[in-house]
Amino acid sequence: MPDRLGFIGLGTMGRPMALNLKRAGAELSVYARRAQALAPLTEAGAIACASPAEVGRQADIIFTMVSDTADVEEVILGAQGVSEGARSGSVVVDMSTISPAVTRSIAARLAEQGVEMLDAPVSGGEQGAIDGTLSIMVGGAESVFERVRPWFARMGRSIVHVGASGAGQVCKACNQVVIGHTLVGVGEALLLARAAGVDPLRVREALLGGFAQSRVLEVHGQRMIEGEYAPGFKARLHQKDMRIILETAAQLGIALPGAAVFAQSINALVGRGSGELDSSAIHQIQLDLCGRGGP
Amino acid sequence: MPDRLGFIGLGTMGRPMALNLKRAGAELSVYARRAQALAPLTEAGAIACASPAEVGRQADIIFTMVSDTADVEEVILGAQGVSEGARSGSVVVDMSTISPAVTRSIAARLAEQGVEMLDAPVSGGEQGAIDGTLSIMVGGAESVFERVRPWFARMGRSIVHVGASGAGQVCKACNQVVIGHTLVGVGEALLLARAAGVDPLRVREALLGGFAQSRVLEVHGQRMIEGEYAPGFKARLHQKDMRIILETAAQLGIALPGAAVFAQSINALVGRGSGELDSSAIHQIQLDLCGRGGP
Repeated sequence: MPDRLGFIGLGTMGRPMALNLKRAGAELSVYARRAQALAPLTEAGAIACASPAEVGRQADIIFTMVSDTADVEEVILGAQGVSEGARSGSVVVDMSTISPAVTRSIAARLAEQGVEMLDAPVSGGEQGAIDGTLSIMVGGAESVFERVRPWFARMGRSIVHVGASGAGQVCKACNQVVIGHTLVGVGEALLLARAAGVDPLRVREALLGGFAQSRVLEVHGQRMIEGEYAPGFKARLHQKDMRIILETAAQLGIALPGAAVFAQSINALVGRGSGELDSSAIHQIQLDLCGRGGP
Repeated sequence: MPDRLGFIGLGTMGRPMALNLKRAGAELSVYARRAQALAPLTEAGAIACASPAEVGRQADIIFTMVSDTADVEEVILGAQGVSEGARSGSVVVDMSTISPAVTRSIAARLAEQGVEMLDAPVSGGEQGAIDGTLSIMVGGAESVFERVRPWFARMGRSIVHVGASGAGQVCKACNQVVIGHTLVGVGEALLLARAAGVDPLRVREALLGGFAQSRVLEVHGQRMIEGEYAPGFKARLHQKDMRIILETAAQLGIALPGAAVFAQSINALVGRGSGELDSSAIHQIQLDLCGRGGP
């Protein structure tokens, strides 16, 4: 009998991801806190559930895609959570971006009732979710990864089993660290070009031809030059990720001074009320700091 | 009559660059401070000169590739410098990485005697110089750029006319800022992975599939994972570039906090006697700082 799937959390990312699973022919049970979020899925043939527990009862593989660490704990372990309904042998796949340490403790709790867990956070933003081209970074047992892999392939293009439980979240943290640094670096370079009276478009073009090349320079560099910050990936979410990362660094006893510089820029950006902009809008903070605002 | 070329500075970068010009059939006059550096060029048919001034007398287009700002000033404007020999209508092309402000002042001095100047610093390292695949970032008049372009094409692959005099140096500064940030970011991410017990090779692989992709992650990330720091691009040269960049930022009145974080890591690396290693060896500083040294 084919796997019955569940999906909890139907926001900007979760909705298109769940739709891609449904279009692949899955039997799909869904839950969202906001009832109106259910409509696009039920219209596509999904079964609406009254609680995460009900999703847990109906499905063999239950995906969660919610905002933050506390939300994942609640929908999985809280009252009427997935764990109240899930049977031994079923699998919880959390695709949210949350704390690696909490991920491991949730996995340990589920294991006590025979429920497997994968952490599988994604990169690629709303467009990647719609197109089914996300990067998916997976932690958990190899055999469970292989069981879920065909469904990952409906949502993403680059799918890597990184390691044991929590490794997917650690990998996503690394991803956000690298993107954060590269945003700061590209932004500082474009600020330098502008302040020196040099065309930032030409600089971007020249740098793309050499070792300074990156996807961030290509995509976000263009946004910075145009002052075009419609998301993309919202600053307030990158702020949340940096909070998790710097907490994790403190727990592990490691220094990430560059990540801290980026986190401060994001704090300033969100603090001025621009948390809904793409996180590349930190370039505006860099410009304004030096009295060189404007796109 | 075809252009007669000159080349001054036959070190790690200059030697293969000059050889590529000679192989393209140019009549080539050369000068180097160390006499033994001349041998590979004279064996290839170049004419050895006793001073930069003599190169200036013999050539129509004189390339310079030396270490630092003061060296460029000396070989162009100093006693027995290029300017003592160069005729009106000839072109000086400085391919060293030096101060944008000093570049503009040298160009102004040469203009007084009717000599044109381009600043054309490169990226791509020794291998790029040997293979003729450098990125060349050019500042100066468009018509002069067009005159020299066929020769640039013998040394590089990505050749961008960035803007007026100094714009090539500003662009190179931007290039070094972006690479520096990306090195710090990739290094912090790999430190985080390692400290959290996650395989950094898998993390690199997963990140290359998404928005964290960069040439630095691909090439220098691999070096960091293997602890393999044979240059490449030497830390002491990246230190010199960061000194120029932070001086330029101060002159322009702009803040580059992330570039400063990278510069401090490079200072520590050079300070411990590792200036001849590739600049990606800052990862060793990141690891050692947290008591997690070793490749």
